[in-house]
Formats: sequence, C-alpha cells, structure tokens
Amino acid sequence: MTFQPYLEAISTQIQHTAYGEEPTELYEPIRYIMSLGGKRLRPLLTVLSANLFIDDWQKALKPAIAVEVFHNFTLMHDDIMDCAPLRRGKPTVHEKWNANTAILSGDVMLVNAYELLLDVAPAQLPRVIKRFNRTAAEVCEGQQLDMNFETRTDVSQEEYIGMIRLKTSVLLGFAMELGGIIAGADEATTQLLYDAGVNMGLGFQLKDDLLDVYGDPEKFGKQVGGDIIANKKTFMLIEALLLAEGKTKEALNYWLSLEQGSYDTAAKVAAVTDIYTQLGLDKIAQTLADAYFAKGFEALENLPIAPERKRPIMEFAAFLVGRES
Amino acid sequence: MTFQPYLEAISTQIQHTAYGEEPTELYEPIRYIMSLGGKRLRPLLTVLSANLFIDDWQKALKPAIAVEVFHNFTLMHDDIMDCAPLRRGKPTVHEKWNANTAILSGDVMLVNAYELLLDVAPAQLPRVIKRFNRTAAEVCEGQQLDMNFETRTDVSQEEYIGMIRLKTSVLLGFAMELGGIIAGADEATTQLLYDAGVNMGLGFQLKDDLLDVYGDPEKFGKQVGGDIIANKKTFMLIEALLLAEGKTKEALNYWLSLEQGSYDTAAKVAAVTDIYTQLGLDKIAQTLADAYFAKGFEALENLPIAPERKRPIMEFAAFLVGRES
Repeated sequence: MTFQPYLEAISTQIQHTAYGEEPTELYEPIRYIMSLGGKRLRPLLTVLSANLFIDDWQKALKPAIAVEVFHNFTLMHDDIMDCAPLRRGKPTVHEKWNANTAILSGDVMLVNAYELLLDVAPAQLPRVIKRFNRTAAEVCEGQQLDMNFETRTDVSQEEYIGMIRLKTSVLLGFAMELGGIIAGADEATTQLLYDAGVNMGLGFQLKDDLLDVYGDPEKFGKQVGGDIIANKKTFMLIEALLLAEGKTKEALNYWLSLEQGSYDTAAKVAAVTDIYTQLGLDKIAQTLADAYFAKGFEALENLPIAPERKRPIMEFAAFLVGRES
Repeated sequence: MTFQPYLEAISTQIQHTAYGEEPTELYEPIRYIMSLGGKRLRPLLTVLSANLFIDDWQKALKPAIAVEVFHNFTLMHDDIMDCAPLRRGKPTVHEKWNANTAILSGDVMLVNAYELLLDVAPAQLPRVIKRFNRTAAEVCEGQQLDMNFETRTDVSQEEYIGMIRLKTSVLLGFAMELGGIIAGADEATTQLLYDAGVNMGLGFQLKDDLLDVYGDPEKFGKQVGGDIIANKKTFMLIEALLLAEGKTKEALNYWLSLEQGSYDTAAKVAAVTDIYTQLGLDKIAQTLADAYFAKGFEALENLPIAPERKRPIMEFAAFLVGRES
C-alpha cells in the first residue's frame, strides 16, 4: 500500500489554494509555511477516513486542507510563543518576517481554515463548524496548559496526557471524524473515527517524545535531544521527575538547573538520556504509546465496514506505530 | 428615541456568553476585554438592522455578540502589534498578562465568534460564514496596511480611505448585513444594509480622526492629540503631508522627526493642530465625513421599508454623525 495518490492530491490542493493576495506581507507567510512540507498526516487522515465509505475521496480534499491550514496556523502562533527559530529546518515566520506579521498572518490562516470548510455540503456545515470550533478551542487550551507546565515541576502523568490530548490528539480525531461526516457516516461511526484519531494521536505524541530521545539522528527529522536541551516537559521528563530518587534525582536536577549556553549540550543529552534509560522510561513510554495505538486500532476494527475497505487506513495506522521520523 | 432596551439586552447577552472555563489563563482575558465596555456599536447595528424587518430582534442577539467578540479579538491582537499600554483606560491584555496570553486568548476569541454565529438558522449558515470570512480577512488586511503605512510618508488619501474601509468599515457593513440576513431580508436589501454600514463606517472613522484633534477633552473618551503625539497616519496627517508647503511643511516635518520623550507633548499637539487648522483640514475632513454619512443615509432611505420602521436606525445614524465622544 502506498499513500502516494492521496498525498499528491493533497499537495496539489495545497498549492492551488487561494489564501489571499494583497497586501503581500499578510499572505506571503501563509504560502511560506504551507510550502515547508511536513507529513500531511491530518489531511491524509481526513481523505483516508472519507475513503472508508466512498470511492470519491477527492470530495474531502478541500476540508482536509482546512485541517492542515489550521494545524499550520497553530504552528505559526506557537512558534512565536515558544521563541522557536526554526520550523522544519527553515526560519519560522516571526524570524523571517517579525512577530506582528506572524500574529496577523496566523489570524488570517484561521479564517482561511473556516473558508475551506465551507466546501462541505450545506446540510453538514452546522455540525462541521460546531465540531471544528470545539476542536480549535481545545487545541488552544492544550497550548496554554503546555505553557503553564513550563514553570511547574509537579506535573502528573495524567495532566500531561490531558494536555497532549488537547494540544495534539483531538485534531487528529477531528481530521478523521470530518472525513466520515463528509462521506455521510452516521454519528456512532464518526464517533469511532474520532476515538481512533484521538488514541492514535496520543500514541503518536508519546512516540514523538520517545524519538526525541532515542531516535536515529539519520532518520529523525529534528535534532535528537532537542527536548532535553530545552528542558521541555515531555512524558519522559515528567516521569523522570516522578521516579528519580537519591543521586539520580540530584543529577537530573543539576542538568535541569543549568543556564542555557553555560554547558556542553551533548553532555547534557547523553547524561539525561542515561537517566531516562536507567529509570526504564524507554520501555514505560513505549508500552503506553502501544496501549493507545491498540485502542486506536480497536476503534478502527469496530467500524461497521468490510475489512478490505479498511486496509489503507489500517496500514496508515501501522505506519504511524512504526515510524522512526 | 433611546437605544437603552437594545443596549441592555446586548450587555446581558455579553455577560451570559460562555467563552470557556479552563485553563483560566486562556479564558479570563476574554471576559476581561469584553467587560471593558465600549459603545457596542456593532451589535447595536445588527439588532437595529434585524428590527427593520422583524419585531423579534432578540433573535439576532447571539450573532450580534459574535461581531462584538470578533471586534474585541482584533483589538486584543492589534494592541500587541501597536504596543498599546491602555485600552478604554485600562491595561491591555498583553500588559496585564503577557503577549503570549494575548495571542492565544485572541485566537480562542475568534473561534468563539464563529461559535456564536452558529445561532443563525442552519439554512443561513453558509451565507453568514462566507460573508463573515470575507469580512474577517479584510479587517486583517486593513490592519496590515495600517502597519505598512507607518513607515511610509507618501500614503495617498485614496490609499488611506481604502485602508480604513478594510480595517473599520466593512465590519460595520457586515454587522448590518447580518441583521438583515437573520431577519430574512433578500440579497438586494442586505446589500443596501452593507453599503449603509460601510459608508457610515468611513464617516465614523474620519470623524474619529477629527475628534482626536478637535474633540472636547471633557467629552472625548481618549486623550485629545493622541494620534498627533504618536505620529499616527490619520486622514489629518496624510492630508497635511500632501498639502503643506514651505515653512509649514518644515514645521510639520520638525515635529514629526522628534524622538518620543524628547519634547513637550502639549506643545507638539498645539503646533500640529495649528498647522491642520491653517491648512483647513478640519473643514476638509468634516466635509468628507459628511459625504460618507450622506451616502450611508441614502442607502438607508432606499431600503424598501416603511419610514416609521426605519426611525430607530435613522436616529442611530444621526447619533453617529453628531457624536462628540
């Protein structure tokens, strides 16, 4: 199974989307961030979900792009908040232009997302907008919680899972639900799609946290150890803060306490990775990620559709489980 | 005629709107900015416009609040971009909290606006969202142009009118159009409402530029001369840059060139006001504002409705023409 036909259609649709023209300062950053690529997971989930029920999955393309535009809007604004210099290896919008441009272009991107959603059948629009609004608000809530966690040292695993559910997973859930709605699936079925997306999203984010530490630098797209250098409150760090005792705890706190620029980053990455491994966090995180992926598969299996029809989305889910980048 | 019953209903609706609860860092700034007051012109225009056709104008209340929430979202983000310390005499959101909070709370406010629009009849939703999207994008375009103009000295009157049309007027136009759509008016009629709102919006903004210079400090809510101190490219300054010659031009450029904090602000306000008056800009701006107001009235007069039914909105338009604050 290859996802090439879907991905090509998504790519073409992104290139042909009219985000706006004048003033160029407003619209150029949108074309820029949308051209940086990425895995296009979310629109792929939308068209694959639609394709579960209808052959004409192209019907879901424009709304699928709405999800990708929304996702990139959140990246543009999150990058300002996180003072991130790079996105997919290229300068972030607020670096290439400035923060004001990134704020305002992001705002228009959110409007663009709603415009693309208008492509659904008029009768479906109230439901689609309602669900999208809920999802969009939740993604913002997740970002706020993520920022709140930065200054806390007592974040529980439960709180962390709650945060990544909002920040990352609900949008994957919505992406799948949207495909189902467009294809005319009933509410019980679109709920299963949503559950599948949310659970795979949780597995996906936990895997991301894992890959940041244990990923193969040759395959992983980002800098391995980036989260460790930034003291980012990932699942790994939160668990380590809960589990570490004695000298291990002292060592962890020592590395966390160092001011940026005052230490050898490679040494910190090596030392903290070592602590994680000693604490068995690689296995704990993998087990938890697998449990969420299993829940996602269960939801897919429960879909009232012939198994051969499910093959593409099942294979895509398997790809997410096994990904190394 | 008093607008008290409408304004009270708008105020109550704003207080009872559920913007969201957790995390409080995200939603508290929304309640804060919405509680700062303001004239509530936009929701008033929506309910007055609905009331042209139906007695049950309360039907338009929630969508009317959508317009006010959207307006306050733009204020929250614009204040970050403009580094404004105060809004309606109170600290701006990015001052009271921080820029990240103002970015993210603003984002959720935009989502909230779409949620409130869902209150329209399902059959009207595609048209309402389409028109709102267009308006929202145009307001962002206007803000971008406004920022672009800051660093230019060759802005023409035409460009300035184009900018305030986008930044301010189209939202007043949409506010009125929305009331008409909700009340079931046909497209030709809602177009007249839109034209009325846009033209009154242009008159309104030009009047705002005038009041900033010539307003009565006892009545005008903001600091008289605030635009002069900030070198803001208002209609007055743009016209002055075009019309001033010789010594007057030298004097104007001198006051514009001074670094903030290095001069007596009262002296600058007095001197620049004097230049504006010498150039006859008070009369030029008033004449132009009056011309737009007249166009607005003309559109209202052309509405195919009994004159007595038009009385409230006509009186409100007259209030906008005569306002001193």
